[in-house]
Amino acid sequence: MQSDDLREYRPVRGGRPGDRYVKVVEPYAAEFRRRAPGHLVASERVLAPEGGLGRLTDLLRRVLIGRRIATEKEAQERIGPVKGLAVFASDNISSSAYATEEIMRVIVVAGAGALAATLPLTFAIVAVLLIVVTSYQQTIRAYPSGGGSYIVASENLGAFPGLMAAGALLTDYVLTVAVSVAAGVAALTSIFPGLYEPRVWVGIGFIALLWVGNLRGLQESANIFAVPTYIYLVAIFGLLAYGGWLVVTGGLPSYTAPPDVVGAAPLQGLGLLLLLRAFAAGSVALTGTEAVSNGVQAFRPPEARNAGLVLILMGGLFATIFIGISFLASQLGVIPDPSEQETVISQIARTLFGAGTPLHYLIQLSTAFLLILAANTAFAGFPRLASILGKDRFLPRQFQYRGDRLAYSFGIMVLAVLAAVLVIGFRGSVTNLIPLYTVGVFIAFTLSQSGMVVHWWRLRNEVRGWRWRAALNGLGAVATGVVAIIVGVAKFALGAWMVLLLIPLLIGLMWSIGRHYRSVELALAVDLSTGALPRRVAPRVLVPVSRIDRATLNALAFATSISADVTAVHVSNDADDLARMKEEWERWGGPVSLVILESPYRALMGPLLAYIDATDRVDPAQPTTVVLPEFVPSHIWEYPLHNQTALRLKLRLFFRRNTVVVDVPYHLG
Amino acid sequence: MQSDDLREYRPVRGGRPGDRYVKVVEPYAAEFRRRAPGHLVASERVLAPEGGLGRLTDLLRRVLIGRRIATEKEAQERIGPVKGLAVFASDNISSSAYATEEIMRVIVVAGAGALAATLPLTFAIVAVLLIVVTSYQQTIRAYPSGGGSYIVASENLGAFPGLMAAGALLTDYVLTVAVSVAAGVAALTSIFPGLYEPRVWVGIGFIALLWVGNLRGLQESANIFAVPTYIYLVAIFGLLAYGGWLVVTGGLPSYTAPPDVVGAAPLQGLGLLLLLRAFAAGSVALTGTEAVSNGVQAFRPPEARNAGLVLILMGGLFATIFIGISFLASQLGVIPDPSEQETVISQIARTLFGAGTPLHYLIQLSTAFLLILAANTAFAGFPRLASILGKDRFLPRQFQYRGDRLAYSFGIMVLAVLAAVLVIGFRGSVTNLIPLYTVGVFIAFTLSQSGMVVHWWRLRNEVRGWRWRAALNGLGAVATGVVAIIVGVAKFALGAWMVLLLIPLLIGLMWSIGRHYRSVELALAVDLSTGALPRRVAPRVLVPVSRIDRATLNALAFATSISADVTAVHVSNDADDLARMKEEWERWGGPVSLVILESPYRALMGPLLAYIDATDRVDPAQPTTVVLPEFVPSHIWEYPLHNQTALRLKLRLFFRRNTVVVDVPYHLG
Repeated sequence: MQSDDLREYRPVRGGRPGDRYVKVVEPYAAEFRRRAPGHLVASERVLAPEGGLGRLTDLLRRVLIGRRIATEKEAQERIGPVKGLAVFASDNISSSAYATEEIMRVIVVAGAGALAATLPLTFAIVAVLLIVVTSYQQTIRAYPSGGGSYIVASENLGAFPGLMAAGALLTDYVLTVAVSVAAGVAALTSIFPGLYEPRVWVGIGFIALLWVGNLRGLQESANIFAVPTYIYLVAIFGLLAYGGWLVVTGGLPSYTAPPDVVGAAPLQGLGLLLLLRAFAAGSVALTGTEAVSNGVQAFRPPEARNAGLVLILMGGLFATIFIGISFLASQLGVIPDPSEQETVISQIARTLFGAGTPLHYLIQLSTAFLLILAANTAFAGFPRLASILGKDRFLPRQFQYRGDRLAYSFGIMVLAVLAAVLVIGFRGSVTNLIPLYTVGVFIAFTLSQSGMVVHWWRLRNEVRGWRWRAALNGLGAVATGVVAIIVGVAKFALGAWMVLLLIPLLIGLMWSIGRHYRSVELALAVDLSTGALPRRVAPRVLVPVSRIDRATLNALAFATSISADVTAVHVSNDADDLARMKEEWERWGGPVSLVILESPYRALMGPLLAYIDATDRVDPAQPTTVVLPEFVPSHIWEYPLHNQTALRLKLRLFFRRNTVVVDVPYHLG
Repeated sequence: MQSDDLREYRPVRGGRPGDRYVKVVEPYAAEFRRRAPGHLVASERVLAPEGGLGRLTDLLRRVLIGRRIATEKEAQERIGPVKGLAVFASDNISSSAYATEEIMRVIVVAGAGALAATLPLTFAIVAVLLIVVTSYQQTIRAYPSGGGSYIVASENLGAFPGLMAAGALLTDYVLTVAVSVAAGVAALTSIFPGLYEPRVWVGIGFIALLWVGNLRGLQESANIFAVPTYIYLVAIFGLLAYGGWLVVTGGLPSYTAPPDVVGAAPLQGLGLLLLLRAFAAGSVALTGTEAVSNGVQAFRPPEARNAGLVLILMGGLFATIFIGISFLASQLGVIPDPSEQETVISQIARTLFGAGTPLHYLIQLSTAFLLILAANTAFAGFPRLASILGKDRFLPRQFQYRGDRLAYSFGIMVLAVLAAVLVIGFRGSVTNLIPLYTVGVFIAFTLSQSGMVVHWWRLRNEVRGWRWRAALNGLGAVATGVVAIIVGVAKFALGAWMVLLLIPLLIGLMWSIGRHYRSVELALAVDLSTGALPRRVAPRVLVPVSRIDRATLNALAFATSISADVTAVHVSNDADDLARMKEEWERWGGPVSLVILESPYRALMGPLLAYIDATDRVDPAQPTTVVLPEFVPSHIWEYPLHNQTALRLKLRLFFRRNTVVVDVPYHLG
């Protein structure tokens, strides 16, 4: 009786409604392919742009982000370990550019001699990293469909800790972008001082680049952003190898400290508190570790194995660089520059290669670019986490949508905009942004590892060796928890309070969104087995008319085609208009009766709504149907001259219970 | 068969569509009064506000602008000559505060002796005023329903000259508000220097006051704004009478010129050019004359007589003051202050009453307030002219709407906003605004009087003495035309160019709006005698569904109630969703068939629109009807979490030819 799939129909004269068409099978291959009765598959043709403007924007999209990718091609879009390392590890590896220095900056207040503690502290942090990496190895295997802190915490500890982890991570991803873009721009401006003045806009430019690059999809963003990561790795390992060889051969050149350092007296002794603070400062090294476990599904099968491999590679490379830098710094006796003009790595490179040599520049430039690209990890992590939260109904469902290239376009956009707001708000200053950073990550780590402890306890009868696994995760939870507290306290007044305020707000927001969606779902749910369609008689139809013209007749014709109970309503506010309308309606003599509502106070909405209210009392179960004649002009700039009334009416009726609004457009020409 | 008026109905079970209700007559007096079958009159009750916010805004409106006034009470809202003088003459009469001075400022460059020419020039300008007033007396009688320059010019000279007059006047009304508010604020800031810094905001405040005052309607705005006009008249006539008595009795005190004047040598001789320029400067005195003839319908019957009386009163009062001031200035030998610190009137008042005496202050304060209220004339003139243009379709029809108090609310708003923009744009500076002024008025005068010449020529066989009437108007046209040219040239570089550029733009805009409305009207027009309703079979209905829930079932129930040809369409972009939907639909087993559109590129709009296109080929005359299930959450802030898809779909479909969109809202709770 009804169309079960798409064919060409031809009208049959005199048939009864519902069987008035004869199906004529004709090809429609250009736009749809028939898979089964009532099941069509759209071709890319249906997305062909219309009009000049449409074609132009489509061309722009194709140039910027490339051809569309079909969902079934998704597996091909996934990445292997080599690209995975570039996408998911650049944030973490980039930390090696400053982790050693962060430690040294804290302990140097106890005098240059105290810098000997750098290497032991490095080992301590690498130990925590080892624990985290090992723990996440377990997590990835336990949660092969993606096991970020949010999932682990919510499955094992409950929804609330899950949202806490999610809120902490979302905040941190946004900060990662803002901080690393700001840091990268700062690294560039120290080489090109002309970029200092417009640094906020340079930062926004890089964010836009990351936005577009990530809209191109996983494969291509890996292609684009992998190069700087590998250049950095080659350069830094070259530095370490050369330095190591010099140490072994005893040919290490002598080091000259930056000018400000000379003669600075120790401010305090090297106590436990200072060591803890140095440890906290260096633990910024662990940021970015999270991303891999969230993105397991981005990897080619075997997903868990590839993700695990990337995690180990990342940890190994990072630990090697971190220890190497700390070792060389200790061997050379490097002292951090109090004026922050020269980084520790630059001091090492300068001492080994000579200041201003091409190799020194290579180290500096590749570091600068890697710092910018560290943001790319957040662009991989944030949209994925947001999409999982969207699926779980804690965020709007838009976060689940994937664009032309299978990227989570909405999440990417939100991340880019928020990061840009931060860069603008903090005027591109790394110093102001850094204190907000790191707290979130360690909150998430703690929750994730606590969740894993519960996980092992639950599986205690199935998993051999659950005790030492739980113990390992417990150790990790305690370690990261302590770091979280130290970082939160040490950086509280500097800005961490903003994050510690924002996370509960985010939790509250996500919680309310989740509750709202769930309550709506419950309220809308139907029992499918007894969910028959409520029988309805043809509706009461009201057609507001201002005069008789083609648009009005068009609407009245539609109204009479859907119901026999049609009334035209004319609101009149002056006597001339009233007389004219009455006379015209009589002269026309159409099959619809007219009700005139005289409006002594010239209001249109009030009388009409009161009249609808009154007709509503007839049968509250049956919605009143208002058919609006609408005139569609040929050009968009002619809109303000028309339909103001229809627009206002639609807005008012939309919020009215039990009212169906029908737009019958009349197009000119 | 259908409801012919508003009654209570009761559904009858088993009846056929269309006669399924039994009418039960019940009173509905609270909201509607029945005047005739199918003709109801709404009571004020239908405008009762809903909800807390609605009641609050309603209360605010009542406090600010007063109770609503019914259209039939309009005659009572009209005004007599006394209030008419305050409303329509304050602009013109306020010119007497500076007209003498403007003349003197020009001729003083020929030396203090040349100031003797002030009185003759005053007589010349009064002669032009006499011509204009006489001419408008004729106009008012010839066009008793309102005879502004626009009407006279367009009826006698054609649509284009009419629009030119309209454009010139609209521009000038806006400038009147901006200039007189700025001048009034300047007069106040010279007494209260603390107001100088926030003078722009003081000006905006006065504009807001005028806005609200005029929304209160004609009667009340006259009540509010009449007082300063009459205080000014009493004060200035007191000054003239006292001065005249002193001249007659020979007791005129001796005058001391402002300090800067002493010893200033004449810069040039008193040639014809200078006299013409002085004449042009003084002719600012004629601004505001136009308003009465535009507002004839604002007067109590006999409208034309009352309006004519006001025009004569205005001309007489103004001429007396103008001549009186010029006479006293000549008698005293007043010289305008080059530093613009003290006005000529202030010099006269100071000399006669003594500087700083209460009478001197009275003259100054009443002048300041009258200058602000001169704007009120424009608030009476602009909205009326715009409403006439709206009626003639040269401006959007919103300009015709009259608000709660019968004021043209939209025109009043537009005038207030434009004037505020000018005051802000020119930073409240009279000096910068003045050169834009006056050109428009004289263009309108010239067109109006030329129109009257044609008018008399047309009626040459009916009207006795048409020759001298036409000659008088011809003289006026030449005089005002010459003034228009002189003013335009003299002030061109100072800012008149903006007006001379704006007027053609306005003409173009109004012309295009008029052409657009007329072409639409033609395209939509139907021959009522043969304009039968096109017969339509029940529509093809498509219902986009995302899942089966109450909102969907609600929409499907409505769809099946209006047509037997209903197809549900589900766009699916992943395999899980597809399988779930198929399974649910089968389990439900409702009477509607489902078409699944698989979208490999995850787009929703494209496949749906392509499918609608395809079904459209069935019968292009019959619109495709898309029924949209829409979920309406309980709170407005929950909106962003829902209906994003429906919203986008509506937007796209609205611009699509031949598509009827039906919104079926489902309200929770």
